[in-house]
Amino acid sequence: MAGRKVLIVYAHQEPNSFNGSLKTVAVEELSKQGCSVTVSDLYAMQFEPRATRNDIVGCLHNSDNFSYAVEATEAYKRGCLSNDLIEEQKKVQEADLLIFQFPLYWFSMPAIMKGWMDRVLVQGFAHDFPMCYDTGLLKVYMSDLFCFLILEQVSYHGIMHFCGVKVLEPHICFAPEHVSEEKRKEMLIAWAQRLKTLWKEEPINCSAEWYFK
Amino acid sequence: MAGRKVLIVYAHQEPNSFNGSLKTVAVEELSKQGCSVTVSDLYAMQFEPRATRNDIVGCLHNSDNFSYAVEATEAYKRGCLSNDLIEEQKKVQEADLLIFQFPLYWFSMPAIMKGWMDRVLVQGFAHDFPMCYDTGLLKVYMSDLFCFLILEQVSYHGIMHFCGVKVLEPHICFAPEHVSEEKRKEMLIAWAQRLKTLWKEEPINCSAEWYFK
Repeated sequence: MAGRKVLIVYAHQEPNSFNGSLKTVAVEELSKQGCSVTVSDLYAMQFEPRATRNDIVGCLHNSDNFSYAVEATEAYKRGCLSNDLIEEQKKVQEADLLIFQFPLYWFSMPAIMKGWMDRVLVQGFAHDFPMCYDTGLLKVYMSDLFCFLILEQVSYHGIMHFCGVKVLEPHICFAPEHVSEEKRKEMLIAWAQRLKTLWKEEPINCSAEWYFK
Repeated sequence: MAGRKVLIVYAHQEPNSFNGSLKTVAVEELSKQGCSVTVSDLYAMQFEPRATRNDIVGCLHNSDNFSYAVEATEAYKRGCLSNDLIEEQKKVQEADLLIFQFPLYWFSMPAIMKGWMDRVLVQGFAHDFPMCYDTGLLKVYMSDLFCFLILEQVSYHGIMHFCGVKVLEPHICFAPEHVSEEKRKEMLIAWAQRLKTLWKEEPINCSAEWYFK
């Protein structure tokens, strides 16, 4: 959709990988639609996944008993989070669509992506999310490769849902390293195809009844 | 149990935290039993959570298209993983009991702990785990604080189960920052109490039927 802003949070070490191709396909297709696309290439940025006191600039609220949740909340209010976090949060706030793209490591996102979640979506900022949501634009879309344990993903969808974000169905490419070159090309085409009509998709239900049984 | 080796993989920034106290209590109780206790204090060690080519010493198997899984497997076979990984793997191999201790960040372990899982339990090494298991000694015990989303934990238990490790029931202290000092002391005592008879516990079932429905 022309004029829309997209943020792709991307975690793969190798541009020549299948993940790299999926990312390129998304940038091309969305740009063709007139979207402005930003990629946070976490490995290339050497994004810091560890949540430490370095994330707070200046004095701590309570330096005798460091609590990351408390300190991050206070620092967010005062505008004292570290620059790398502020930059990522700005990208999130401006985005109409977020795409998380990563291979699965132990049924879950790689640590570098989990670190993005832990640090960028800190308390304070995360609680402000519903305001973005109210503008009716922010959406999340998670692209999970090699995924066979869907349960796990439901809980990550839960994070975004909790933040007040609409979540679209995940797009999963199963074991691309074990299929033919032709099949991989089909996967890339299917991804580009889905992106053409992504804006019309309905969000999935992240609070299914069985989830709380 | 006298003579047994315990590895506590611990992820909290603050020694004065409730997490810090739980760790101290475990070291004291297990040492009293005659165990030899090792703590991998991930934040203090500044443990690297990012899985990159720095984890492979020397030439890569395929430097044109870097695949972490492939490279780590090859490097493990040749003994060419980076030193920090080899040291952690040695601790795991020697341990009769593993304890993972962390606060929950977004319903899951902090990125620094996920990075330990991603990098230490790499393919190759992880697939050798059943050998440890066959000695009949290796056990895993996960201590998840602030946990209210048990589903998520099941999938982490799945990692260890997949590696051939017996998993004990998690020990959960709910929202220690929101209870009284007295209640927190009771939580510490309950943890020490459990550790007294931990060796007699039966593993939990990590492949429950409903999990694969």
